[in-house]
Amino acid sequence: MSAAGLARFSINQETVKQLSLPELADACGKLGVTQVGLWRAPVQEYGPEAAARLVREAGLTVTSLCRGGFLTALDPAERARALDDNRAAVDEAATLGTGTLVLVSGGLPEGSRDLRGARERIADALGELAPYAGERGVRLAIEPLHPMFASDRCVVSTLAQALDLAERFPPDQVGVVVDTYHVWWDDQAPAQIARAGEGGRLAAFQLADWVTPLPEGVLLGRGQLGDGSVDLRAFREMTDAAGYEGPVEVEIFNPGLWARDGLEVLAETAQRYVRHALEPAAKI
Amino acid sequence: MSAAGLARFSINQETVKQLSLPELADACGKLGVTQVGLWRAPVQEYGPEAAARLVREAGLTVTSLCRGGFLTALDPAERARALDDNRAAVDEAATLGTGTLVLVSGGLPEGSRDLRGARERIADALGELAPYAGERGVRLAIEPLHPMFASDRCVVSTLAQALDLAERFPPDQVGVVVDTYHVWWDDQAPAQIARAGEGGRLAAFQLADWVTPLPEGVLLGRGQLGDGSVDLRAFREMTDAAGYEGPVEVEIFNPGLWARDGLEVLAETAQRYVRHALEPAAKI
Repeated sequence: MSAAGLARFSINQETVKQLSLPELADACGKLGVTQVGLWRAPVQEYGPEAAARLVREAGLTVTSLCRGGFLTALDPAERARALDDNRAAVDEAATLGTGTLVLVSGGLPEGSRDLRGARERIADALGELAPYAGERGVRLAIEPLHPMFASDRCVVSTLAQALDLAERFPPDQVGVVVDTYHVWWDDQAPAQIARAGEGGRLAAFQLADWVTPLPEGVLLGRGQLGDGSVDLRAFREMTDAAGYEGPVEVEIFNPGLWARDGLEVLAETAQRYVRHALEPAAKI
Repeated sequence: MSAAGLARFSINQETVKQLSLPELADACGKLGVTQVGLWRAPVQEYGPEAAARLVREAGLTVTSLCRGGFLTALDPAERARALDDNRAAVDEAATLGTGTLVLVSGGLPEGSRDLRGARERIADALGELAPYAGERGVRLAIEPLHPMFASDRCVVSTLAQALDLAERFPPDQVGVVVDTYHVWWDDQAPAQIARAGEGGRLAAFQLADWVTPLPEGVLLGRGQLGDGSVDLRAFREMTDAAGYEGPVEVEIFNPGLWARDGLEVLAETAQRYVRHALEPAAKI
């Protein structure tokens, strides 16, 4: 695997969460991986300042921090706590030197059936958070989640909805995430990726494959690149055509990958990225 | 429960599949239910002619037959078999006296990642099946399934996609199904229900609620009306506003309901329909 092939590759740490932060940095060094996406819980456990120093000294760039969000609460106290937590997440992103904080917007409050109201509360919360993030050089990246998460995790289910929200704010403060796992089924995704590109809203591009049967709870059912139904190369080409030149982050939640040797999984993931997303399709 | 309250109510037999066809007819008689949606497998087992006689003598109307479809095969022999099977399903619908054959279009063929190609093959197959159905007084009703079924059951994931397909054919030959379980998350659903109404494409309206966590395989995770996140009343009002005056069929696949007494479940389902879909919202 050439270093050139991995120039845009980033490994989201959740893909190889069996590795500690120092182990991840070490594995990246061995394989020529120069970019990582991080999650708040392991960063907080290690200490944000220490984590920032670790990745800096390992020559790694942090491509995103996952995740803020959960902005749909009806209860004022709960809402205030969510806003505080999101400001803390912005601070942590700034400490890590990444300009991208991924937002998972939140599901329906207990007993509510009002999707539209929940989406409006996200917009209200973004109105408070976006300037705070912008002042710290961090962009809030709204991630539409697959519609199967609409009730319990994220009422923003499509790129169109995410852009409808993002476009109420300046493009350097609020963008969107294209994650193939969440949007692969949507025939409107190509047009919405183009729209995101035109508006300068493409904040992050993530890869995972869609495999079935889905496990109970469906959260940990993502597939290794190439194992499923997603035309990953087509999505990479669409984001390219939309002018996106940023990192391509692989984020897979899969207990089967977590049970294996982390370095081996990282090497496999990088190879799969090159074969299924980067290289031109083989001639038949 | 007044008979007037159940004037549009139809019970899909899969909701109470612990009941045999004669038991279902008997339970409907006891509760004042006059409409049923049937499935091919139990009808074939009982015999289509015998089933038709049974429901007719019980004073029941068959509101739909589930299901045809699975029209995405690449292999010519497999495609020919699917077309034959769909013609047989049309014949069975005609025998039962229902004008509605629900179609679940089919997923991606093994190894394929070409959603657009699969959707085009559905259109090709409809071109062969629609006139056959029309001549027999049966309308093919394309059911968009939730995007979580896009790879393995149905590449038609939204009402917009279903209508894009249906509108290539005469409205008396091809329509669409609005099933709340599949479309509740979609902010485009209200506009698409209106579009379906304007074009005379609303062939069936089905209710089920969305509950989490989803079970392994996700097929049998539907919730009893009122137990979940779907604003059922809002959807009933939308279909009303679109000019739909047909049956409202409740179709729930749920092992918890199947484990109980079938008559009791049918009574509960009818009550839930009245409370959550039919009656005006209670004043707070």
